[in-house]
Amino acid sequence: MDFAFDARTEELRAKLLAFMDEHVYPAEAIAHEQRQLLASPWDQPVIVEELKAEARKQGLWNLFFVDQHSLPDAGHGAGLTNLQYAPLAEITGRSPQLAPTALNCAAPDTGNMEVLAQFGTDEQKKQWLEPLLAGEIRSAFAMTEPEVASSDATNIQTRIDRDGDDYVINGRKWYISGAMNPDCKIFIVMGKTDPDGEDIRRQQSMILVPRDTPGLEVRRAMQVYGYEDHSHGGHAEIVFSDVRVPASNLIGEEGGGFAIAQARLGPGRIHHCMRLIGMAERAIELMCRRAVSREAFGKAIAQQGVVQNWIADARVTVEQLRLLVLKTAWLMDTAGNRGAHTEIQAIKIATPRAVVDILDKAVQVHGAGGVSQDFPLAELWAGARTLRLADGPDEVHQRSLARRELKKYL
Amino acid sequence: MDFAFDARTEELRAKLLAFMDEHVYPAEAIAHEQRQLLASPWDQPVIVEELKAEARKQGLWNLFFVDQHSLPDAGHGAGLTNLQYAPLAEITGRSPQLAPTALNCAAPDTGNMEVLAQFGTDEQKKQWLEPLLAGEIRSAFAMTEPEVASSDATNIQTRIDRDGDDYVINGRKWYISGAMNPDCKIFIVMGKTDPDGEDIRRQQSMILVPRDTPGLEVRRAMQVYGYEDHSHGGHAEIVFSDVRVPASNLIGEEGGGFAIAQARLGPGRIHHCMRLIGMAERAIELMCRRAVSREAFGKAIAQQGVVQNWIADARVTVEQLRLLVLKTAWLMDTAGNRGAHTEIQAIKIATPRAVVDILDKAVQVHGAGGVSQDFPLAELWAGARTLRLADGPDEVHQRSLARRELKKYL
Amino acid sequence: MDFAFDARTEELRAKLLAFMDEHVYPAEAIAHEQRQLLASPWDQPVIVEELKAEARKQGLWNLFFVDQHSLPDAGHGAGLTNLQYAPLAEITGRSPQLAPTALNCAAPDTGNMEVLAQFGTDEQKKQWLEPLLAGEIRSAFAMTEPEVASSDATNIQTRIDRDGDDYVINGRKWYISGAMNPDCKIFIVMGKTDPDGEDIRRQQSMILVPRDTPGLEVRRAMQVYGYEDHSHGGHAEIVFSDVRVPASNLIGEEGGGFAIAQARLGPGRIHHCMRLIGMAERAIELMCRRAVSREAFGKAIAQQGVVQNWIADARVTVEQLRLLVLKTAWLMDTAGNRGAHTEIQAIKIATPRAVVDILDKAVQVHGAGGVSQDFPLAELWAGARTLRLADGPDEVHQRSLARRELKKYL
Amino acid sequence: MDFAFDARTEELRAKLLAFMDEHVYPAEAIAHEQRQLLASPWDQPVIVEELKAEARKQGLWNLFFVDQHSLPDAGHGAGLTNLQYAPLAEITGRSPQLAPTALNCAAPDTGNMEVLAQFGTDEQKKQWLEPLLAGEIRSAFAMTEPEVASSDATNIQTRIDRDGDDYVINGRKWYISGAMNPDCKIFIVMGKTDPDGEDIRRQQSMILVPRDTPGLEVRRAMQVYGYEDHSHGGHAEIVFSDVRVPASNLIGEEGGGFAIAQARLGPGRIHHCMRLIGMAERAIELMCRRAVSREAFGKAIAQQGVVQNWIADARVTVEQLRLLVLKTAWLMDTAGNRGAHTEIQAIKIATPRAVVDILDKAVQVHGAGGVSQDFPLAELWAGARTLRLADGPDEVHQRSLARRELKKYL
Repeated sequence: MDFAFDARTEELRAKLLAFMDEHVYPAEAIAHEQRQLLASPWDQPVIVEELKAEARKQGLWNLFFVDQHSLPDAGHGAGLTNLQYAPLAEITGRSPQLAPTALNCAAPDTGNMEVLAQFGTDEQKKQWLEPLLAGEIRSAFAMTEPEVASSDATNIQTRIDRDGDDYVINGRKWYISGAMNPDCKIFIVMGKTDPDGEDIRRQQSMILVPRDTPGLEVRRAMQVYGYEDHSHGGHAEIVFSDVRVPASNLIGEEGGGFAIAQARLGPGRIHHCMRLIGMAERAIELMCRRAVSREAFGKAIAQQGVVQNWIADARVTVEQLRLLVLKTAWLMDTAGNRGAHTEIQAIKIATPRAVVDILDKAVQVHGAGGVSQDFPLAELWAGARTLRLADGPDEVHQRSLARRELKKYL
Repeated sequence: MDFAFDARTEELRAKLLAFMDEHVYPAEAIAHEQRQLLASPWDQPVIVEELKAEARKQGLWNLFFVDQHSLPDAGHGAGLTNLQYAPLAEITGRSPQLAPTALNCAAPDTGNMEVLAQFGTDEQKKQWLEPLLAGEIRSAFAMTEPEVASSDATNIQTRIDRDGDDYVINGRKWYISGAMNPDCKIFIVMGKTDPDGEDIRRQQSMILVPRDTPGLEVRRAMQVYGYEDHSHGGHAEIVFSDVRVPASNLIGEEGGGFAIAQARLGPGRIHHCMRLIGMAERAIELMCRRAVSREAFGKAIAQQGVVQNWIADARVTVEQLRLLVLKTAWLMDTAGNRGAHTEIQAIKIATPRAVVDILDKAVQVHGAGGVSQDFPLAELWAGARTLRLADGPDEVHQRSLARRELKKYL
Repeated sequence: MDFAFDARTEELRAKLLAFMDEHVYPAEAIAHEQRQLLASPWDQPVIVEELKAEARKQGLWNLFFVDQHSLPDAGHGAGLTNLQYAPLAEITGRSPQLAPTALNCAAPDTGNMEVLAQFGTDEQKKQWLEPLLAGEIRSAFAMTEPEVASSDATNIQTRIDRDGDDYVINGRKWYISGAMNPDCKIFIVMGKTDPDGEDIRRQQSMILVPRDTPGLEVRRAMQVYGYEDHSHGGHAEIVFSDVRVPASNLIGEEGGGFAIAQARLGPGRIHHCMRLIGMAERAIELMCRRAVSREAFGKAIAQQGVVQNWIADARVTVEQLRLLVLKTAWLMDTAGNRGAHTEIQAIKIATPRAVVDILDKAVQVHGAGGVSQDFPLAELWAGARTLRLADGPDEVHQRSLARRELKKYL
Repeated sequence: MDFAFDARTEELRAKLLAFMDEHVYPAEAIAHEQRQLLASPWDQPVIVEELKAEARKQGLWNLFFVDQHSLPDAGHGAGLTNLQYAPLAEITGRSPQLAPTALNCAAPDTGNMEVLAQFGTDEQKKQWLEPLLAGEIRSAFAMTEPEVASSDATNIQTRIDRDGDDYVINGRKWYISGAMNPDCKIFIVMGKTDPDGEDIRRQQSMILVPRDTPGLEVRRAMQVYGYEDHSHGGHAEIVFSDVRVPASNLIGEEGGGFAIAQARLGPGRIHHCMRLIGMAERAIELMCRRAVSREAFGKAIAQQGVVQNWIADARVTVEQLRLLVLKTAWLMDTAGNRGAHTEIQAIKIATPRAVVDILDKAVQVHGAGGVSQDFPLAELWAGARTLRLADGPDEVHQRSLARRELKKYL
């Protein structure tokens, strides 16, 4: 047992921290200003492409890609393990609107690239994975539906019906993150190819649907507590009406959708959780800076016992969360997705909840500023809060984890 | 001791509940649609004026005006006590974007009207109170400043300097609710007339500043978790640069600002808290309706023990909160602002916190829908959360209430 | 709606507060000392009888007895309503080991007396109710069983079998409060007379079993977090082995046990909750006294923001709880047990939980003293904590209340 | 970074787990029975010595002794690092009344042995450390005082006055754990040798006081929520009245008491926290076993969503806590007491609080049984709760940790 990062990780952390200081943090205000002048809120500020170019030049590119994947074109990723990438993901979480994109490590592209690398045909890889790895296009993952509790995959209503050499897709999806961005060129769509199949985990398939396919309508931007998350490409409601694609667009085999979704989960949760921890660290920093600089009733807010308690509890919480997520990454590397199952659920339950609370305290310390657009806290809070619902609400994961625990005694 | 509403209250409750069913709830969707077509987001949908006309016709107008105030023109208010109005305020809280305005009982006008009625000159009443009571104009209350912890009134930096027959105002305010609405014609501004005065509670004064006064710039709309609260007239940042008004615009006497602010607080807090309870009731209703209509993993969400716990706890909480707010209203009526001091602080501490939690649970039950614009929950949450900061953060009130409790043992 | 106590209540409150100051509080230390010298820990200190005599002399006797009961001998009770008695019960809760007994208002005798008054035969009243009303004997209520979740009455395993003119009782009970006290002469035992009956709420009956009946073994004292609760007569495990009593000992009719248990609940919960509020008030007082008298790191603990928050939150909580319990008492008086059903559940859920938390904070403020025998806090905590389990765990009541709420939307 | 235990740890874990199964768990019931027959509750059951002999034979002895200490007699300890011992301490925490003592790894002896090894003279080591290492005697650490907030060491009132070749000790201590056990032969007493010294961290000294020294009175057993903790030797109140010991009994130098106390803290906190985690694991096991074996309202308690949530949250919490404590142990090994300062505070804040909550949930699942003497949960709860006060209340550590965090931004 050893709690020190290895040399490769330390080296990349140093490099990334310097990149954040020199390029990302200064870009935050610039991006904000450029954003005011965009023709469409869904366009991206120029600075984003500049950051991407710089990151790529520095070798801070596609770091998320773990080396067990057989890449279509060797050398795309940095060849890191999950455990090596995790602390880097945390650092990008400190500036979540810019840093993950700058490094080509943003969701949902990361998960989509992994799916294509692992399950895609050579043609699919060439057409979609390569431009994604190059940061030339973006992608989306269309799973959640408005009409049903989508945490239960057997509820999925979207149909993917075979018709000759094609599949025809009908259904309605929402909260499809990234899809409002016009650069998002390809959707991975989850639907049912065999809705009456006996094995309820073999009813679903995944299929590639290019953005410009007739019948696909990106209908509107869904809000998250008033935010539209422009920098993330928003969260779209999408209607599929007789959308026809060639059968070769299917990912993997018919009925394989559930299994692919499961495989996609693990690394994504680690990335999300590490970025959340990065957000929490930024919240603690902002909370402390505010506390030492504001006075009320004759003394700095930092001297109030209640504020001190919040800061202490935030620190104590973050130290624990980080270790659990890192251990989960290590388990993914050493025991695989299956061996890390309990831990993957545990971090999904623990991290958003805790970080939401830390952000809320940071908001409170900032007074009216905390809920405003002048500090990033309220928007970070909204994003973190949503992660208590994304990929299934906390309660689904709590139940599942409890059952696993109880099984030992049955 | 008697926990039944009196006959007058019951009669008005019945009338108001019918008004909600017949006019307000149906207007919610209409207002939403009309809003899409407005030239400016700060304009108000036509339906609002129609609701106001109907409410006035039915005698559901200015109900908030308690009868101890000597009205400039008898008969404006309904002659209710705080205890009689409180349950009506709760009902309006169920549709907070429409009902309070429809009844001319919306903040911050209510508090401003009370200030004018209690401290205004005849001329001030004629010029500003009468059109406010008639629902012809709106008003704002400019207290909070971005640069200081405004919960400590001695921190206020805005200057109100006497210059001949005028006062000249300089300062910056933000989160001035209602001020983005062009119908908001008059601001009550809190500032310091005597910043070096020995008695720190006599440094402040309040003054009337018409919207069109030169030097007054409504600079931008502040956000609340991404929302701009169009239907409430938003929350403006306002800069006062050498804004000159006649000395007769002062409310009460020089140095009286702190005392007027204190007097203004009590009823406003009761209104806010009762409306919050109305929001909580709506949240419980939405949570129940969703729970009985959605299935996950083979059974209705309503059958999940965790959801049942949330519903039970919400009910138990709301029953307690309502009684405490009603008792506070009764104390205001029978013992005055001073006699109700502890309770006024208690409801300020307890209500937003509890209602925020109930709304959060309702969001969770709604899944992605909960954070979206398709249900009112996320926006209600943002509003309720902000009330844990407005008028001073919880912690200021907790400390003050604790000191009062501790004083008994010193 | 009126939040003032009526004149009768105010008069009795004044009298009882004086009785507490003059007799009860001074008796606490004396009782503690006398207890050290008792032959058996289950004997009661002499001072208890002296307090009873004094209370009876002052007319502070059997106050709990509400006037709708037809008493066997008019004039036993004080003729109060539940709403009038509730604030008196609160006061007795400030010294829970002495005051309720001193006033002959202690559980479980109060509930047992109500059962006998309402359902007992004249003979049963003469034999058991009269000496109970006179404070000459004590009683117990034998319901909970160790082998089953007793919150579900259909789980009860104890058998009450008819045999000629007798009933024969077999079963095991535990946590039978008061039964370790040798003065406890009579047990009301809940068991099944018709275990296979179709209507699962008609399987149970209640029967009177005198302490000295052959086959009844009081086996041992159950602990509550290390305490044996000597002053309350402890909590016994009792085994019934072929215990034979005449058929006339049955209370009410065969199959009526469930209904009697339901009828018994309402007032008892109000008493318990009001006493808990009295305990919370004492905890707040102790917490404040300690906080102003102890120093750490250069200032009184009372000046620490965290401690102030605890005190403020305790006050805010208690004010709400009290109102809800009082409203429940009022509903019992005006709408009956059935009309107060939701509220009776609500106070059962809310009160122990909240008071446990307040006591825990008071313990924390007292440091090591808080967990010790030198302050009453740890023992009060243990008692309050147990009330989250007694009469069914919180979760049973939460579920039931939630279902009632959900029913509106089905 | 590596989350696997090393081979030495795995080997000892396997050995210790077997020892628990074969010897400790079966001894629990035996110890309980033997205890009923003891002449004094402060005597120890015979089985304890048998366990000690077996553990020593198996090499499971003094495992806590980390190898950087220069032992008086090489080979006493197992030569483990803190990181290697920590997971073993966790296992002993599953049976906290027997296992730590069986392995000669029980508090407060462990800390006292470390103090003697690090600061003791050869003579002190020979006289006290050797029999302690051999498990022949027990010891106590007399720091806490009833009259002052002892978390602030400058508050200590006990005097250690030089008088010729002796020191004379006067003062009152309480909650001196282990001191009720007659085998506890030696006390390390903290007091002030220089109460007016300018440097408030040099006023204190530590001194060895044999149990039979005249003037030392072990006055009474302090309770912890009704428990006297017989198996731990209780918690004594001790009065020192002109207690005279030779000057050579001083540990280290005059004025060194504060520094020794600080040095003593780190490992002790790790041990306590790991044992608490062991208790939490036992609580989870008991909670699960109960949940699968009890039915209420027609289904096993294990199927209730609320209970599942408790189990899931307990698991998620324990996984995080364990990692943080292990990391702290690793930091102690690699960066020393000082380098691990923040983490040592963090685990002190996080662990007792979390484990108290887990135990409380386990109690709730057990109903009346949970608060009784028939399950270990209530007693474990009381012990864990007390650790939120021992060594200073949570709030002291929160404040200190917060200041360290805030310092970065000053």
